[in-house]
Amino acid sequence: MEYGLDPSIGKAIMQAAQEVAEGKLNDHFPLVIWQTGSGTQSNMNANEVIANRAAEILGHKRGEKFVHPNDHVNRSQSSNDTFPTVMHIAAGVEINSRFIPKLKQLHTSLHSKSLEFKDIIKIGRTHTQDATPLTLGQEFSGYSTQVKYGIDRVMCTLPRMYQYLAQGGMAVGTGLNTKKGFDVKIAATVAEETNLPFITSENKFEALAAHDAFVETSGALNTICASLMKIGNDIRLLGSGPRCGLGELTLPDNEPGSSIMPGKVNPTQCEALTMVCAQVMGNHVAITVGGSNGHFELNVYKPLIASGLLRSLRLLGDASASFEKNCIRGIQANQERISKLLHESLMLVTSLNPKIGYDNAAAVAKKAHKEGTTLKHAALNLGVLTSEEFEKLVVPEKMIGPSD
Amino acid sequence: MEYGLDPSIGKAIMQAAQEVAEGKLNDHFPLVIWQTGSGTQSNMNANEVIANRAAEILGHKRGEKFVHPNDHVNRSQSSNDTFPTVMHIAAGVEINSRFIPKLKQLHTSLHSKSLEFKDIIKIGRTHTQDATPLTLGQEFSGYSTQVKYGIDRVMCTLPRMYQYLAQGGMAVGTGLNTKKGFDVKIAATVAEETNLPFITSENKFEALAAHDAFVETSGALNTICASLMKIGNDIRLLGSGPRCGLGELTLPDNEPGSSIMPGKVNPTQCEALTMVCAQVMGNHVAITVGGSNGHFELNVYKPLIASGLLRSLRLLGDASASFEKNCIRGIQANQERISKLLHESLMLVTSLNPKIGYDNAAAVAKKAHKEGTTLKHAALNLGVLTSEEFEKLVVPEKMIGPSD
Amino acid sequence: MEYGLDPSIGKAIMQAAQEVAEGKLNDHFPLVIWQTGSGTQSNMNANEVIANRAAEILGHKRGEKFVHPNDHVNRSQSSNDTFPTVMHIAAGVEINSRFIPKLKQLHTSLHSKSLEFKDIIKIGRTHTQDATPLTLGQEFSGYSTQVKYGIDRVMCTLPRMYQYLAQGGMAVGTGLNTKKGFDVKIAATVAEETNLPFITSENKFEALAAHDAFVETSGALNTICASLMKIGNDIRLLGSGPRCGLGELTLPDNEPGSSIMPGKVNPTQCEALTMVCAQVMGNHVAITVGGSNGHFELNVYKPLIASGLLRSLRLLGDASASFEKNCIRGIQANQERISKLLHESLMLVTSLNPKIGYDNAAAVAKKAHKEGTTLKHAALNLGVLTSEEFEKLVVPEKMIGPSD
Amino acid sequence: MEYGLDPSIGKAIMQAAQEVAEGKLNDHFPLVIWQTGSGTQSNMNANEVIANRAAEILGHKRGEKFVHPNDHVNRSQSSNDTFPTVMHIAAGVEINSRFIPKLKQLHTSLHSKSLEFKDIIKIGRTHTQDATPLTLGQEFSGYSTQVKYGIDRVMCTLPRMYQYLAQGGMAVGTGLNTKKGFDVKIAATVAEETNLPFITSENKFEALAAHDAFVETSGALNTICASLMKIGNDIRLLGSGPRCGLGELTLPDNEPGSSIMPGKVNPTQCEALTMVCAQVMGNHVAITVGGSNGHFELNVYKPLIASGLLRSLRLLGDASASFEKNCIRGIQANQERISKLLHESLMLVTSLNPKIGYDNAAAVAKKAHKEGTTLKHAALNLGVLTSEEFEKLVVPEKMIGPSD
Repeated sequence: MEYGLDPSIGKAIMQAAQEVAEGKLNDHFPLVIWQTGSGTQSNMNANEVIANRAAEILGHKRGEKFVHPNDHVNRSQSSNDTFPTVMHIAAGVEINSRFIPKLKQLHTSLHSKSLEFKDIIKIGRTHTQDATPLTLGQEFSGYSTQVKYGIDRVMCTLPRMYQYLAQGGMAVGTGLNTKKGFDVKIAATVAEETNLPFITSENKFEALAAHDAFVETSGALNTICASLMKIGNDIRLLGSGPRCGLGELTLPDNEPGSSIMPGKVNPTQCEALTMVCAQVMGNHVAITVGGSNGHFELNVYKPLIASGLLRSLRLLGDASASFEKNCIRGIQANQERISKLLHESLMLVTSLNPKIGYDNAAAVAKKAHKEGTTLKHAALNLGVLTSEEFEKLVVPEKMIGPSD
Repeated sequence: MEYGLDPSIGKAIMQAAQEVAEGKLNDHFPLVIWQTGSGTQSNMNANEVIANRAAEILGHKRGEKFVHPNDHVNRSQSSNDTFPTVMHIAAGVEINSRFIPKLKQLHTSLHSKSLEFKDIIKIGRTHTQDATPLTLGQEFSGYSTQVKYGIDRVMCTLPRMYQYLAQGGMAVGTGLNTKKGFDVKIAATVAEETNLPFITSENKFEALAAHDAFVETSGALNTICASLMKIGNDIRLLGSGPRCGLGELTLPDNEPGSSIMPGKVNPTQCEALTMVCAQVMGNHVAITVGGSNGHFELNVYKPLIASGLLRSLRLLGDASASFEKNCIRGIQANQERISKLLHESLMLVTSLNPKIGYDNAAAVAKKAHKEGTTLKHAALNLGVLTSEEFEKLVVPEKMIGPSD
Repeated sequence: MEYGLDPSIGKAIMQAAQEVAEGKLNDHFPLVIWQTGSGTQSNMNANEVIANRAAEILGHKRGEKFVHPNDHVNRSQSSNDTFPTVMHIAAGVEINSRFIPKLKQLHTSLHSKSLEFKDIIKIGRTHTQDATPLTLGQEFSGYSTQVKYGIDRVMCTLPRMYQYLAQGGMAVGTGLNTKKGFDVKIAATVAEETNLPFITSENKFEALAAHDAFVETSGALNTICASLMKIGNDIRLLGSGPRCGLGELTLPDNEPGSSIMPGKVNPTQCEALTMVCAQVMGNHVAITVGGSNGHFELNVYKPLIASGLLRSLRLLGDASASFEKNCIRGIQANQERISKLLHESLMLVTSLNPKIGYDNAAAVAKKAHKEGTTLKHAALNLGVLTSEEFEKLVVPEKMIGPSD
Repeated sequence: MEYGLDPSIGKAIMQAAQEVAEGKLNDHFPLVIWQTGSGTQSNMNANEVIANRAAEILGHKRGEKFVHPNDHVNRSQSSNDTFPTVMHIAAGVEINSRFIPKLKQLHTSLHSKSLEFKDIIKIGRTHTQDATPLTLGQEFSGYSTQVKYGIDRVMCTLPRMYQYLAQGGMAVGTGLNTKKGFDVKIAATVAEETNLPFITSENKFEALAAHDAFVETSGALNTICASLMKIGNDIRLLGSGPRCGLGELTLPDNEPGSSIMPGKVNPTQCEALTMVCAQVMGNHVAITVGGSNGHFELNVYKPLIASGLLRSLRLLGDASASFEKNCIRGIQANQERISKLLHESLMLVTSLNPKIGYDNAAAVAKKAHKEGTTLKHAALNLGVLTSEEFEKLVVPEKMIGPSD
């Protein structure tokens, strides 16, 4: 209206658009995402629904084009700038309002567990083999750090998500048929409404022809998937058992685990989470392929790219929240088991290295392993140190940090 | 019932299961695929719905377990063998009943076009640069051959899809609590009902612990995507224009192409198709990641893998059919344009190689290019052959095949 | 020479080419694969080396073009048909002479182990949780079946690898400047020399413009990677320990495992194998992207696609052979540990299902788990069956197959 | 030495290590990357070479362990912290010293071209179809913006690359057998030597067990590949021809393009670049798979992940530099062709929208297209505006930006 649209029509359009935004006219949006690659069909769908509804509001019939979908509603806009604008708004809002809060919740819960478990000393495992000890809290601190960095990773991509409003670029990025300053004003309005620092794209040719920002953010999600698959795998393996696995963790018992094996409790939350991670990794490849295939002034994989990232955000956020609520929060340490494994381990021998050297320490470990005895027994037998020396050196509590 | 289930309960179960199969009880299946990785929750959902409905049929109330979801319905079965069995049946049926017919339709249409266009000689393009001529029919024969091989590729994977019925393997593949021969009988029944050559899995440990057959078939779809992206890209580029592109093909005009540029016709079918290809490539990575992450006796990415392949099949089949119907079938050759480009091309010079040698031929082409003249003009000017020789040698019609 | 090349030059070319084939002139091939996408530079490199060497043989100097690299050596050929021809020959030969034999060796070894371990009953694990028992031989039979199918998968793709000789297609597939029948003759010669059923491509337009056959075979390798990652993960987890892991397998002790933890033996072969699998999965995506990006008459990702598949074949074949030789062959079952875990397991309760029903069996398992007792103790305590009944039903030896 | 190592041995070790760093002992490093997943074998290789060389320096024989590879050289270190430390140093240095400078060079060159071409008005293309005009400079500004953001993307990941020095974490991250403060000191030394802001890892459990930072940086490279594939494709298509393509750009003529078609100039730099992009996308998947598969205290895909990222950096940096030098820098605009296409285009009709409305403008375009006439002819014929109005409105120079 500021640029000359008849205010009575403009207000009707605003009212109609508000009804669309509230979902009241959802039935009039039947299109799938597998349409034209610019999203023009969805954009025209919106223009037509709004035009028809605005006409109705003004007492006219649908289809008469009293309010014209192109001339009045679409007006100084092209699908080519509108659609990527909406893509960026949707992704920015989704990340801030749902995705990050859910990851933070997961981080908080993992961090709490790392504090709760800070005094539980357990065997470490490298190459899946017994290694030197650490605390269960230290182990969980690794997980919480991964998630914390994951949040940083997504946040780091947001500047390019925010600075990317294409609106005002029109069909090819030049701004033909718009007024100078329109692009800045519309970005400011979006920033105000969303309370996010959106600005107009500094280069609208790039903003229409490429969706690298989506590929980039998808790459951050892909990294988070690598983290969460690692965490999910660790937790199901540490919780494996109850009698023939590692059995160090007891996972919450959410549902009957087996239709045939009574009493079985399965790490279903780990399974749902890691399945989601696999899908998000796959979506990342799809988004990358789409992002790399633009031609000239327009990338025509917009609906694929937009829906791919939005789905990945939703899936990964929801799965993280569910994993936090239904698994992490209720994890208990099986202290008896943890202690038993720790004290049987041969890798405590590592603390003898500074005293007797690597070769002697290796000989002690090998002898104990071969003969099925304790390290102490083997060490005394080999005469590499005294009982007192052994007791003084092999103390798991002293093995969980550097010395003074 | 053959193995001892009370026939009255058995018949009620059959009736209830039939109702489920007909979709009458769909409202009782609220679960998403992001559940336990064995699909146990969906299997138990089915068992419970069937048990309750069977109980109702027999005059009992739901929830009373008159018909017991585990003891009566699930009975000699585990989610671990039931779910992969259903995965294979679903994929086998989908491939045969929908996917292959749609690809065949696309092949037929491309083949028809290759015949329709068999006499239209056009410039070839290699490295996107002008090359020696071929017929438009020959170009389309390349596309139709790609699709034909694509069908072969999927068909070649089916033996491992069919031979994979896990039913009878039970929880870990041993067949505990089943009777000998149960597995073979159930596979025979499935084969009869589906009219597809399903047989029981020769190794049920593999059938539960891995879904390599799904990874393999997904790989065949991934190859088809490579084919279809190539075809889709060629067609949109050959149809680019109408005045500033290659303009050799006229694509069907399905919908208004632009909300801002009047009169624009876009290759929307190519765009939808190539977006689908990108997604199926992404799903392939998701399925591969899921397929590679099994542990011990069970792969727990079953719902991801099953839904991924079924979605890829549906998407790729439907997109191929739509592409065939709304694009390929209506493609017209822009003969005037094709002829104009052909006769301006410098690459017709290649037919002079056997007569005047590569270096002389190159000199002719370069001179014509530099001076903006015809090849003939340049050749005569360089004195490498006579006008008669030129006319005799540079004949596009003779350049589209080997000589006798 | 059959088509008119001066025999003295022809024979010199043959001699020179033979020297190239024997690697005598390798220093004259300095090019990397990141060149033009048709491989033209490598093809011209070969033409020039052969021409110069042939000229030398005939007593002329290099660089004089007495034997001309294009007119005499390249002659009725284009990089566009020569390069893909060589791609197919190289892949076909590599698959048959090195890759398949190595996979067969792995299959044989896994199969031997499945026989060797056929009487060792162990706990099964599903969802990483204790499940019903199976034999270690059955577990290994799953692995050997995966590898067997992997061989089938690659073999199934070979028809399209063999039927694809592009030679005779020339620059765009038409065969311009060749003689009729040249393509068939050259394919026959290749078939004879390689002893593999190569035939000329039925459609040379497809053979130049697409490399779907490489994408397809890469997809088969990708499936094998999914199999081998599963096997590698299982084996390192089953061999985890020595005291704080599952400890059911003892893996060969190839090298000192740790620079700091004495006496540690790591599953290094599993690690090398699974790293290779990850790389081959990545190469598969690279090949797919390259395969999907052809334009018009030529795919210009040929060096990427060819080197990608050949590297994947070499890596995966060598890693499989090393894994077989240095790991599988020397795996020993830790029978004491296996037996201990088996008899402690609660999942033996599953064999009570047919007798006392799922709900009662679940109650027994839960009671034993909660109280840390044996199943028998819990069962008798709950009064669901007698001591004799328990002893008769809970027999691991009877739980590893269906009943009569 | 600060922590107690005999200074004479310490100095000999330093001298020996310096010789290794200078490449003098490269022949003693025969290992491939497909080894143990912690890189222990390469670490021990280094320890042993250094120990033996240090012993020689001190007048002892190799193999006598006068300087002990574990006790003296490896000392307070584990492969598990040393190897990831070196991974981060190598990646950080490579990114800063080679990769970013090369991308900047490409950005500068693209930016120069956007200025050079700022007054050349050309037809825009969306959906590969003719669209409204823009300047060639605007088109190149899109490319240069993509590359600029690509640099930002990599830089944004560096904080997590720098903050990740694992040294001092020892076998599982606890720092067992080291002294407090060792980790901080060593990071400070690395920072000083490299002049990069490396700091010790805030959580060493994460630093050993995951390589998310590598997955993240690889994701940034993957995004750059999406950008460069788009740019490479555009440039080869805009340079297609010389007579039957778009022909708007003339690319530098680097080498003979065809072994059979004389005078052909191919976009070989675009081909090498886009092949590299495909490989880097593939490496990204490999790195992601490796990154997601860590177990417990150690990720054992370190050599794969490290070599994958380093190769991707090298390939992508070198390909960008070559593309800049051998292609972008020498691109010339084919102004005659550009102007001809622009003035034939029907999409100039878009500038009539504000005056005569979308429907009338569409009718003009369609009429001109159908009848093969000019827009003006069609517009006058339809009587929608006068000749003067048309001339005033349809001015390409006014169509390349918003109006006042």
